[in-house]
Amino acid sequence: MAEALDKNAKAIIEANSVDLEAGEKKGLSKALLDRLALDGKRIQGMIEGLNAVKGLADPIGEIISEWKRPNGLKIKKVRVPLGVIGIIYEARPNVTADSIALCLKSGNATILRGGTDAIQSNIEIAKTMADAAYSAGIPQGAIQLIEDTNRQTAEELMKARDYVDVLIPRGGRGLIQTVVQKSQVPTIETGEGNCHAYVEQSADLKMAAEIVINAKCQRPSVCNAIETLLVDEAIASEFLPKIRLELEHRKVELRGCQKTLSILKDIKEAAEEDWRTEFLSLTLAIKVVSGVSEAIDHINKYGTKHSETIITKDKKAAAKFRAEIDSAAVYVNASTRFTDGFEFGFGAEIGISTQKLHARGPMGLPELTSYKYLINGSGQVRP
Amino acid sequence: MAEALDKNAKAIIEANSVDLEAGEKKGLSKALLDRLALDGKRIQGMIEGLNAVKGLADPIGEIISEWKRPNGLKIKKVRVPLGVIGIIYEARPNVTADSIALCLKSGNATILRGGTDAIQSNIEIAKTMADAAYSAGIPQGAIQLIEDTNRQTAEELMKARDYVDVLIPRGGRGLIQTVVQKSQVPTIETGEGNCHAYVEQSADLKMAAEIVINAKCQRPSVCNAIETLLVDEAIASEFLPKIRLELEHRKVELRGCQKTLSILKDIKEAAEEDWRTEFLSLTLAIKVVSGVSEAIDHINKYGTKHSETIITKDKKAAAKFRAEIDSAAVYVNASTRFTDGFEFGFGAEIGISTQKLHARGPMGLPELTSYKYLINGSGQVRP
Repeated sequence: MAEALDKNAKAIIEANSVDLEAGEKKGLSKALLDRLALDGKRIQGMIEGLNAVKGLADPIGEIISEWKRPNGLKIKKVRVPLGVIGIIYEARPNVTADSIALCLKSGNATILRGGTDAIQSNIEIAKTMADAAYSAGIPQGAIQLIEDTNRQTAEELMKARDYVDVLIPRGGRGLIQTVVQKSQVPTIETGEGNCHAYVEQSADLKMAAEIVINAKCQRPSVCNAIETLLVDEAIASEFLPKIRLELEHRKVELRGCQKTLSILKDIKEAAEEDWRTEFLSLTLAIKVVSGVSEAIDHINKYGTKHSETIITKDKKAAAKFRAEIDSAAVYVNASTRFTDGFEFGFGAEIGISTQKLHARGPMGLPELTSYKYLINGSGQVRP
Repeated sequence: MAEALDKNAKAIIEANSVDLEAGEKKGLSKALLDRLALDGKRIQGMIEGLNAVKGLADPIGEIISEWKRPNGLKIKKVRVPLGVIGIIYEARPNVTADSIALCLKSGNATILRGGTDAIQSNIEIAKTMADAAYSAGIPQGAIQLIEDTNRQTAEELMKARDYVDVLIPRGGRGLIQTVVQKSQVPTIETGEGNCHAYVEQSADLKMAAEIVINAKCQRPSVCNAIETLLVDEAIASEFLPKIRLELEHRKVELRGCQKTLSILKDIKEAAEEDWRTEFLSLTLAIKVVSGVSEAIDHINKYGTKHSETIITKDKKAAAKFRAEIDSAAVYVNASTRFTDGFEFGFGAEIGISTQKLHARGPMGLPELTSYKYLINGSGQVRP
């Protein structure tokens, strides 16, 4: 499949230029057009992604556990594919290549339903990869792209409970909420990250500043960037003016609670809604809290159970934060930006689950599998 | 909670008699009234169930895996509760006690929505257990029964995605299908079992007969009993007349395919729909097949991915059957009746999942949990 993408790069770029032209006419934003655009370098990126997946261990067939019952039955729990994975996504054509590779490597059939804006690119990429896979012996039909991108095809996919084992939405909040609310097929909710950094009073303030700046500014448009900074009141008047300089230097807009405003007098006031918002941009809400309990309460109330960090030297505060925060990834003294399949060492990522059923946090190949029980007997019947 | 049930047994039996009286007036079937009825012995059964759960290992806090990244980050994957588990069920009041015990032992809050027919019994049982739990330090609200049993309360529960982490329906096919189709809360589909036994031509026919009789007759009303018998044509004329005698002796009604009818001339013909039916009674469909491939195709087409068994001495046939059957439990030379949390050695069972997401097959305590990642750093930021 990687070779075929390389050979067919010109046709893919041509198909992509049709999408780009249509997107410009439609008035897509610059950011969206940039996500959509493919060039030789981005296709090389897809190919590298495929080669990385090729190098991963095959999860299928792994014996997860085995045991023997007193009646002599031998039970093995073995890893099997989920079956058919549906992916509903938006305008990034690299998701097409990436999803096909991860689903195939984990033994699954894939049904892709991408957005209208990237449809010509997606058709060319999916056809290139499917043809290559079939010519290498993968069964016909194991890789499918729904070419009709009207709303109805997505809705039919969401009703296909008897045919699709799981549906994974990849994209913005609107898409994800529509899928998880409407789908009769089991879904995995991914991506929404209203993440927090909490600077506890014992924190090394230099480390705290580095982590806050990294978690907010290194790539503000992604789900594991922070949206709210919580600061203990004991250190607020020392820490806030310093971090303000650093953040405003990086063009971050600050919105503070009343206590924050009493220290940073001329910043904007945070509205109730700001605590719930995944800004995905250079905006940061700031709240001064009385201590670790108030920080935990705030995060568990307003967060999306994605990633949170505490910066502290106090082992008790760290332990309480780790135990009581109900999020997929809970950090002590590190940036939330590490919540990622590659950074965790999984070698791949199909998304970051914010639900608790089946998979939580970064999902790699094993999260695209199920299991079955194989039981060996010698005539046992139930008394 | 066990002690409280014992102390309060009289009040529970009284509440149950109100349900029984209402059920008789309403014209409930004898079988339903029997499921609903409680007496001292059945309450002792609940108490024994509670004591068994008490003895199980606590799954929460288990370190599932841990590793260190090249940048020094230490990552631990630890087992945590799912959070809030909703159970929607029908007329068996013992499900109330059982669900509360399993959810509490796995660290979860429970919201129970039982059926109208058992509501007085359920209120008394849940109140008894919740009061006992709260007086022992469990937080108020961790155990809740929805007392209003009109349809709307079930529908609201199915919409409470922000408050409930998983919804598990326990009951008949109608209930389960309604919940999995309507719920916006992630669900686990349980229970429906159109299970098969396949007698391969090399089988020990005495063992085959014992397994078929056990899997069909030992308790025909449960999901892991078989509904269809598949027999290789090479042995059909030897095996079918023998098994017919045994089955008809146990009052099993047989429905055969054309080839079966050519051997067992006077039994009823199986309709297409019979292959799809979970009879849950002393009815068995019989099909003669050309070999293991046809048996596998039939099972994967008509089955519910629950439990299937092959009776064979041929290792190749067994291996093919184990590899290609897409069911939660695949047996070689044993009865399907062993698909059960207790028989598997889990010490408990909340149901048998027939979906592939999150949990498959018998679900014990670990299947009522999720996990989170705890990451310890020393100031790491993402480059």
